[in-house]
Amino acid sequence: MNAQNEKDSLFLRNIYNQALTEGKAYDWLHHICYNVGARLSGSYGEKKMIRFLETELNNLNTKVTLQPVMVPHWARGISEYAYIETSKDKITTVPILALGGSVVTPASGIKAEVVEFKSLEELEKADINKVVGKIAFINGALPNNFIDVSDAYGVRGAQRYSGARIAVNKGAVAVIVRSLTHKLDDSPHTGAMSYEDLPKSRRIPAAAISTNGANLLSSLLSLNPDLKFFFRQSCKIFNDVQSNNVIAEIKGSDFPDEIISVGAHLDSWDVGQGAHDDGAGVAQCLEIIRIFKALNYNPKRTIRIVFFTNEENGAKGAIKYAEESKKKKENQIFALESDAGGFTPLGFSLQGNEKKIQKIKSWKNLFKPYQVYYFEKGFPGLDINFLQTENNVLAGLYVNSQRYFDYHHSENDIFEAVNKRELELGAAAMASLVYLVDKYGL
Amino acid sequence: MNAQNEKDSLFLRNIYNQALTEGKAYDWLHHICYNVGARLSGSYGEKKMIRFLETELNNLNTKVTLQPVMVPHWARGISEYAYIETSKDKITTVPILALGGSVVTPASGIKAEVVEFKSLEELEKADINKVVGKIAFINGALPNNFIDVSDAYGVRGAQRYSGARIAVNKGAVAVIVRSLTHKLDDSPHTGAMSYEDLPKSRRIPAAAISTNGANLLSSLLSLNPDLKFFFRQSCKIFNDVQSNNVIAEIKGSDFPDEIISVGAHLDSWDVGQGAHDDGAGVAQCLEIIRIFKALNYNPKRTIRIVFFTNEENGAKGAIKYAEESKKKKENQIFALESDAGGFTPLGFSLQGNEKKIQKIKSWKNLFKPYQVYYFEKGFPGLDINFLQTENNVLAGLYVNSQRYFDYHHSENDIFEAVNKRELELGAAAMASLVYLVDKYGL
Repeated sequence: MNAQNEKDSLFLRNIYNQALTEGKAYDWLHHICYNVGARLSGSYGEKKMIRFLETELNNLNTKVTLQPVMVPHWARGISEYAYIETSKDKITTVPILALGGSVVTPASGIKAEVVEFKSLEELEKADINKVVGKIAFINGALPNNFIDVSDAYGVRGAQRYSGARIAVNKGAVAVIVRSLTHKLDDSPHTGAMSYEDLPKSRRIPAAAISTNGANLLSSLLSLNPDLKFFFRQSCKIFNDVQSNNVIAEIKGSDFPDEIISVGAHLDSWDVGQGAHDDGAGVAQCLEIIRIFKALNYNPKRTIRIVFFTNEENGAKGAIKYAEESKKKKENQIFALESDAGGFTPLGFSLQGNEKKIQKIKSWKNLFKPYQVYYFEKGFPGLDINFLQTENNVLAGLYVNSQRYFDYHHSENDIFEAVNKRELELGAAAMASLVYLVDKYGL
Repeated sequence: MNAQNEKDSLFLRNIYNQALTEGKAYDWLHHICYNVGARLSGSYGEKKMIRFLETELNNLNTKVTLQPVMVPHWARGISEYAYIETSKDKITTVPILALGGSVVTPASGIKAEVVEFKSLEELEKADINKVVGKIAFINGALPNNFIDVSDAYGVRGAQRYSGARIAVNKGAVAVIVRSLTHKLDDSPHTGAMSYEDLPKSRRIPAAAISTNGANLLSSLLSLNPDLKFFFRQSCKIFNDVQSNNVIAEIKGSDFPDEIISVGAHLDSWDVGQGAHDDGAGVAQCLEIIRIFKALNYNPKRTIRIVFFTNEENGAKGAIKYAEESKKKKENQIFALESDAGGFTPLGFSLQGNEKKIQKIKSWKNLFKPYQVYYFEKGFPGLDINFLQTENNVLAGLYVNSQRYFDYHHSENDIFEAVNKRELELGAAAMASLVYLVDKYGL
């Protein structure tokens, strides 16, 4: 090991020691979960989050900017109610959640027969006569055979996002989709859906049903294909409202025009506490600043911590940040995002300029003592993705994916689902990579 | 990739598909946790576990042998009771658990002043006059700065195992040790302790206190060094009893005398359900047999699945298995153990013949698609460790260690703490390595 390498090695050890022995990420996450809470775009929770971030960034002595962004404003209203009616006097309630962006049902609810599809593709191929007037039930389970669960999610994501749009063209009166999780339980998982350019008059309500609920409905349907499904939801789409990205900047001493953007999203779904998604990422980004300050590290390049709004249902924050950056002709040399949950970090998903990716890979050995070994090409994350150029590299913190979708977009995504050390290791891995990019450039 | 490599690559994919889509490990673990339950050596639970394993191995059409072993028999008796007495009319109860192997307190309990030590080393150096007649409180916290939490456990393990033996030489009347976990909660973690050759008349009771309890006691002591601590426990050491290792064998077709031993321990502590420790390992070993049968894989070498008894407080099962094997002059070419919890597998800890370790490392690329990358020298596990020779290799399934000690030896080690996919991935990684060793030898 040469002297330079030894110095870096030592600095990484200091970063890890900071995160693991003096770390504040877990406390910040606790505050986000219990004092801020759920924080969908346009909600009061989102406002509280923005205020919280401003305060904490001021406490960390960084220059804070609020970047105005117009965001969608959808609200769930009162709790959904759903049941399976197998005969006139026999109903069984099942847990559902309206999908984000869905229209309301009539106040008296919707009751109709159900037609089940094992996938969105099966619905797409279906005979319209079998669907018309019914509720389309898209019961595609997350496949088990993928190693990275995000890949399994990728395969099934469209049933939630596009199910309603496809179903309406088959004459369905509503759509119920199986929750996107491997876990068999009673918690539905919400998430974004879109009608795309479907006229308002043709839009049908869409909801997610828990995996246990989906299995029950499927079993009962096989016994009694004429059963009816009832559900009621009172969600509403309001006009767009103004929100903010929250940006903290530490000016670079030597190359202030070379910008390293490090981000997470400040919004979350409106159920649970948004702990893994993406309170963890937010806490880790704050922690990176804290670690650099604690180690008296003054970056050569400009490090910008960006808390994006509206990742969950529109990515308007990400789009705005990229637009403004382009307008100013900023040189975004590198961006890093944490939005895969506060799980044990395995490495980084890299996207962008091949030669520069190779440069990052040349640092792999420095990460080996920390069991961070994964430096592979892959999607870095929705929020930073808009910053891609031919000359830069985007990286996503790559974590153990096995448990993420047990919690994702559901009431299970709470503080207690995050392990303190796993969260801290993620912050340390991120700070280490930012340090190396800042020191050596790309 | 050459043809051979491609064939192996495909076989590993089949193993993973089996584990992830047809896997039975999680069901077995459920049975172990809820139908067998806790199973300390000599207990009724342990007998149930041996019966369960016999039945399941018969169902898997393997040849089963029960290998007799004499094991210690210690029982907790009725629940412990402990409080801190800060004044005559002010007590605060705290959760404790007798350490395995500890003697009973007098029926009326022990009440004494407390002297706190931040480590076992501090107690060893202490002036006897400060300890005599008091309860020694060894409050060493698991250090935070290690990456692998097992290493942190390694640093502090002696305060539990040897605390009483050291304390008695300082005149202490009892010893209370801080639980070996990073988690701050109200669940004490038990585990083995030993008086070594200390005469029976000099033995003092030893118990673990929860981390929250330890912090409280420490704070109150700093305010009031004269406070008293009371505890009562009714544990008992009975005579050794006969138990069994449970061994299943699949005879090798080409080299039946070359033995591959794959193991986990069938006993557990008497609190919680022994889910991670080591129900997970047991379920994974059963799954390896199931996978090989499902894939019609007939091993060239003899594969022996060994469920060791008494790992937790004596390792008598492991010692007996190694002894009998030596007596028969068996050629144990390779052994593999899973006893680090049912967490996401990262690779294998390898110990033994250097050249043969290199051979195993040459297969690393086959494991890359499964994010199994860790092939490093390290301790393979207590049970197989007795099988080491100059010519063989021992391997321990190496898993993400971050959460293990949150559950370890406590009431938190229950079925729900294990993730189905993480458990299955471990079984697949083990089956893959066993397949390669069987096919190519060592």
